[in-house]
Amino acid sequence: MYLASDNTGPAHPQVMEHVLAANEGYAMPYGADPIMERVRDRVRDVFEAPDAAVYLVATGTAANALALACYGQPWQTVFCSPVAHIHEDECNAPEFYSAGSKLTLVPGSDRMTPDALRSSIETEESRGVHGPQRGPVSITQVTERGGVYTLDEISALTDIAKHYGLPVHLDGARFANAMVALECSAAEMTWKRGVDVVSFGGTKNGCMGVEAVVFFDPDKAWEFELRRKRGAHLFSKHRFLSAQMEGYLKNDIWLDMARQSNARAAQLSAGLVEKGAHLLHAPDANMIFASFPRRIHQRLHDAGAKYYIWSGNLEGDDPDALLAARLVCDWSLSEEHIAEFLSHF
Amino acid sequence: MYLASDNTGPAHPQVMEHVLAANEGYAMPYGADPIMERVRDRVRDVFEAPDAAVYLVATGTAANALALACYGQPWQTVFCSPVAHIHEDECNAPEFYSAGSKLTLVPGSDRMTPDALRSSIETEESRGVHGPQRGPVSITQVTERGGVYTLDEISALTDIAKHYGLPVHLDGARFANAMVALECSAAEMTWKRGVDVVSFGGTKNGCMGVEAVVFFDPDKAWEFELRRKRGAHLFSKHRFLSAQMEGYLKNDIWLDMARQSNARAAQLSAGLVEKGAHLLHAPDANMIFASFPRRIHQRLHDAGAKYYIWSGNLEGDDPDALLAARLVCDWSLSEEHIAEFLSHF
Amino acid sequence: MYLASDNTGPAHPQVMEHVLAANEGYAMPYGADPIMERVRDRVRDVFEAPDAAVYLVATGTAANALALACYGQPWQTVFCSPVAHIHEDECNAPEFYSAGSKLTLVPGSDRMTPDALRSSIETEESRGVHGPQRGPVSITQVTERGGVYTLDEISALTDIAKHYGLPVHLDGARFANAMVALECSAAEMTWKRGVDVVSFGGTKNGCMGVEAVVFFDPDKAWEFELRRKRGAHLFSKHRFLSAQMEGYLKNDIWLDMARQSNARAAQLSAGLVEKGAHLLHAPDANMIFASFPRRIHQRLHDAGAKYYIWSGNLEGDDPDALLAARLVCDWSLSEEHIAEFLSHF
Amino acid sequence: MYLASDNTGPAHPQVMEHVLAANEGYAMPYGADPIMERVRDRVRDVFEAPDAAVYLVATGTAANALALACYGQPWQTVFCSPVAHIHEDECNAPEFYSAGSKLTLVPGSDRMTPDALRSSIETEESRGVHGPQRGPVSITQVTERGGVYTLDEISALTDIAKHYGLPVHLDGARFANAMVALECSAAEMTWKRGVDVVSFGGTKNGCMGVEAVVFFDPDKAWEFELRRKRGAHLFSKHRFLSAQMEGYLKNDIWLDMARQSNARAAQLSAGLVEKGAHLLHAPDANMIFASFPRRIHQRLHDAGAKYYIWSGNLEGDDPDALLAARLVCDWSLSEEHIAEFLSHF
Repeated sequence: MYLASDNTGPAHPQVMEHVLAANEGYAMPYGADPIMERVRDRVRDVFEAPDAAVYLVATGTAANALALACYGQPWQTVFCSPVAHIHEDECNAPEFYSAGSKLTLVPGSDRMTPDALRSSIETEESRGVHGPQRGPVSITQVTERGGVYTLDEISALTDIAKHYGLPVHLDGARFANAMVALECSAAEMTWKRGVDVVSFGGTKNGCMGVEAVVFFDPDKAWEFELRRKRGAHLFSKHRFLSAQMEGYLKNDIWLDMARQSNARAAQLSAGLVEKGAHLLHAPDANMIFASFPRRIHQRLHDAGAKYYIWSGNLEGDDPDALLAARLVCDWSLSEEHIAEFLSHF
Repeated sequence: MYLASDNTGPAHPQVMEHVLAANEGYAMPYGADPIMERVRDRVRDVFEAPDAAVYLVATGTAANALALACYGQPWQTVFCSPVAHIHEDECNAPEFYSAGSKLTLVPGSDRMTPDALRSSIETEESRGVHGPQRGPVSITQVTERGGVYTLDEISALTDIAKHYGLPVHLDGARFANAMVALECSAAEMTWKRGVDVVSFGGTKNGCMGVEAVVFFDPDKAWEFELRRKRGAHLFSKHRFLSAQMEGYLKNDIWLDMARQSNARAAQLSAGLVEKGAHLLHAPDANMIFASFPRRIHQRLHDAGAKYYIWSGNLEGDDPDALLAARLVCDWSLSEEHIAEFLSHF
Repeated sequence: MYLASDNTGPAHPQVMEHVLAANEGYAMPYGADPIMERVRDRVRDVFEAPDAAVYLVATGTAANALALACYGQPWQTVFCSPVAHIHEDECNAPEFYSAGSKLTLVPGSDRMTPDALRSSIETEESRGVHGPQRGPVSITQVTERGGVYTLDEISALTDIAKHYGLPVHLDGARFANAMVALECSAAEMTWKRGVDVVSFGGTKNGCMGVEAVVFFDPDKAWEFELRRKRGAHLFSKHRFLSAQMEGYLKNDIWLDMARQSNARAAQLSAGLVEKGAHLLHAPDANMIFASFPRRIHQRLHDAGAKYYIWSGNLEGDDPDALLAARLVCDWSLSEEHIAEFLSHF
Repeated sequence: MYLASDNTGPAHPQVMEHVLAANEGYAMPYGADPIMERVRDRVRDVFEAPDAAVYLVATGTAANALALACYGQPWQTVFCSPVAHIHEDECNAPEFYSAGSKLTLVPGSDRMTPDALRSSIETEESRGVHGPQRGPVSITQVTERGGVYTLDEISALTDIAKHYGLPVHLDGARFANAMVALECSAAEMTWKRGVDVVSFGGTKNGCMGVEAVVFFDPDKAWEFELRRKRGAHLFSKHRFLSAQMEGYLKNDIWLDMARQSNARAAQLSAGLVEKGAHLLHAPDANMIFASFPRRIHQRLHDAGAKYYIWSGNLEGDDPDALLAARLVCDWSLSEEHIAEFLSHF
């Protein structure tokens, strides 16, 4: 009953097999390994983007911060949700990599609305040289509260960005989960809807630690390479990143895993509702925020369930007090795991 | 005959076994995995430093740049060799992580001499607030030309640094190779000789990608954690870094591998001298710089040998022209590989 | 009728006399001029702070950004009002000088309330190494909307900061205006109420371009000197900064000028209210935000009055539409100027 | 007998008159003052560059660091002399403003030779993504040792830069002194010889504190404006910078002053040679490095002469020991001052 995060579970066996296989013999370092050539082609296929520049790094924060730095300037501001990972969970990495950009928190929650985005963009740069200048728009898909933007919602945001000449970044730490939720293609969720650069996550969905950065405009390629090296994110034994990504994409297990984790989340949220829990956000993918009485949390806790208490405190006098939980399903959970979790309600 | 670098060979099977084993089940992310607890203790044992702060990152450049940033200020200058990795091969990562420090290149070659170091330190900061201020001294052990500082040579440098109140960093990308060359302990090569912080390399010596940063003064611990996260170098599935390091240190295979690669380099350099090649630097560890006629390079090349031509051009009219090669032995080379290489002379 | 800003008017004759006098003969550069020695003593007297470290720079943005950088870290966040000058009007200078800090905008308007500040501080750093760490609190006095915090209000904010161990910066671009409004001493408005460092403005109140940075804890002195030089804000012919500040403080003309501009603002706001205008904020010092009908704006505009339309558009169909104006009184305005302005209503 | 620097003397009366005149009445802030419009035109005339972008800042370090930042990238290296002001005397300001560029010190002294420059450029960037990338070339004219590059020497350097596609910056803190030494036009010394951006100094040559940055390619204009504001170098009461520059350029007093200071230096160096002193560098402009016996230094010192002892120590046993002096003539020195100085030999 491990529901703390999708980074607490194991990597998929196929990923590990590729890593092991990559360890045979010798390979050129720093991204010149032959596996990377195949991965580049494969990612281009996945995105139907034959000219895309494709790079690998080991952490999602590196993918986001490097991608944004290629599209912004230090005197600009990045538009994002107030709960975006780039704002809340990266210890100022975007500010570091951009040499001091701001992040403008578009009022609202995890989902930016077109109106709020437009209004934020309008407000910034109304002060000429005095205020921060408008920079990239960053969309998180799946959002930090488990929501998935529809394709039209993405278009609505990128249309606004384009209107102001701003580039669009998509933080896809849970890209696959969103894609299977929308039943769309990778291209449909990105460049066909106006996205310029994607952090294409692997780590949370069955890899050890690998993320692709995909630039649909290859003009950014060389700058990215220099920023990656300067950021100390270019692996010498790069083949171990390539191998993970190759194993991840082979036979579409990346989509199978995402379907699996989304299905577990659906099973879980249905069960929670049935048991009387309250869902704080619509669970579109593999992440659920639900509130239920303290005594059930305590029961789960005693039974060894692992997850974050989102609000409230496990200890307390009132057993009926409602505490919220964040519950994240990764690919490795089974129906039985979920059923066992629900059995404690 | 792969002698291009110690980052082109495979990881040691024991390292891979630990990685595979780590993939079983669940583990807390971001360094809170139980393997890391064991690794921390093990590294402290290795260094006889029970209070040391120990962290893992995936690249040597990250280890160096983060360690130096914790010990320097943006208005300072780092003293290092003109061929130090931090100067030549990190695309300004130390400058990036330190927010704009300088590097003062102590005149000479790969080995800083005490006189040259003292003179460089004296020169800087003679201009009050106008010039850069004196910052950390960074020593590379094994040097970038394959040399190993003796323990007394290290002391001579750290004594000067201490005289001026400057901290000392040791770039130990090939730490194990130096240690077995000196037949000393890790403590003797570091804090007992005045080193404050070490980049303790694993990647080049049989790991996939892991380096420890070891602070003998634990006061720097929290700052390092923040800098690592902000630099996007904190792994969510951190157990895969921990596992590599655990496998690396278990049963001292790290030292066995270093002995192995040093022995191969000794075999190779002896053979090269016997064949009439000229050694450009004394090969103290696992790296050799040798010059020999173009026709032999061409023969090796045709036979599939991989290594960097250090100076000169493989193509050319004069078959007797002397070209230099950099030849690096990693743990996986056998006596037979070396013999085969030499057979082409 | 120049009410656009307190940076559009002339410097006070006494300031200019000091500048002219300073031009006689020779003086050591870079802050070693004898005038600076006197200024340092004088500022210490003004603040009743005999150990304070006192420095001069030429712009308010430099004073703010350098002061904050001495008290923060790149992985921290600065707490300030959403309309603070450091956020809205410095083109990311605080982020630049701090190497990438965030600014946390404490919800509300120009005045931070204790509750909002406490809540913002509580929220940040609740995510361990993942989120930004808590950094300095920056208070603007006079606020950007013309308000003046009472001494107790300042204490309430600094008490919270101290509770969390956070340093407090006061952006005193209009320090004198606030001081005369409160009828208190410089010490009472700063260190006696828990402020650690002050940007003590001269430019807006009758100087050409000079601001003092006053650290009540002199431990920050050397770091400030290095940051100032590295930021290119150390003047070689520093005596021209010193002379301005000496002229500014002599015979307390700085307080006379502030009293003068506050009195003009009081005259103006009383007149505006009498004429039926609506004040958007309580005008505590020398800055007024008032709304009145477009036709009056047009009349003023035609008469050559200079000020910023704060909201709305001078051109428009409805002559009765209410547009807001920002009206700033500097020391050089006379009663007649104000009367003339009001005569157009 | 004040020969310490050209920043210890007074500003020219005409400059001060313009500053005083600028204080009349009101002016728009932040560079929108009408004087700046005239200054822009005047500087364009001086440089015969009708499209040039022209900006003012208050310090030479700001001019240099901002200009270089507009032409470089953080992963690049700037090529300059080992004694360049940007390296030795700006406390890492170029590294700060460029977000972490390196400076490659072209071997030699104050004058870069074409061969040394070419060789340095060739060496950098030979390591692909690993080493720093090639960035701007920065030439100091007058050099830090008082030398003046001939126009052909400038062309030889800029030709090399252009060959590698690198932009060229000219640090003209003593621009006027070089120009009158060469008897050439401002255009001939800059864009006609391949220079892209100039720090056009006023401070050392009779102003209080003002430098122009002149971009011959106006495409950099907006970036400069943002960098200047973000660096806190945009003056609100900008008219006081404009007025200095207007006074400085009017009736070519800037050239008269430079001629005056060069003539005094010629008088002084001739006198020194006659008295048996040894000149360390050819004194092409207004700066002299000369060695002569300690007893003369002591005599001068007792007589109140001010200058920097460049090497050696005023105190010492041997009265005949040779100590070097740096002697800088500013515009305000008279023939009598020099004669008095020489009278102590």
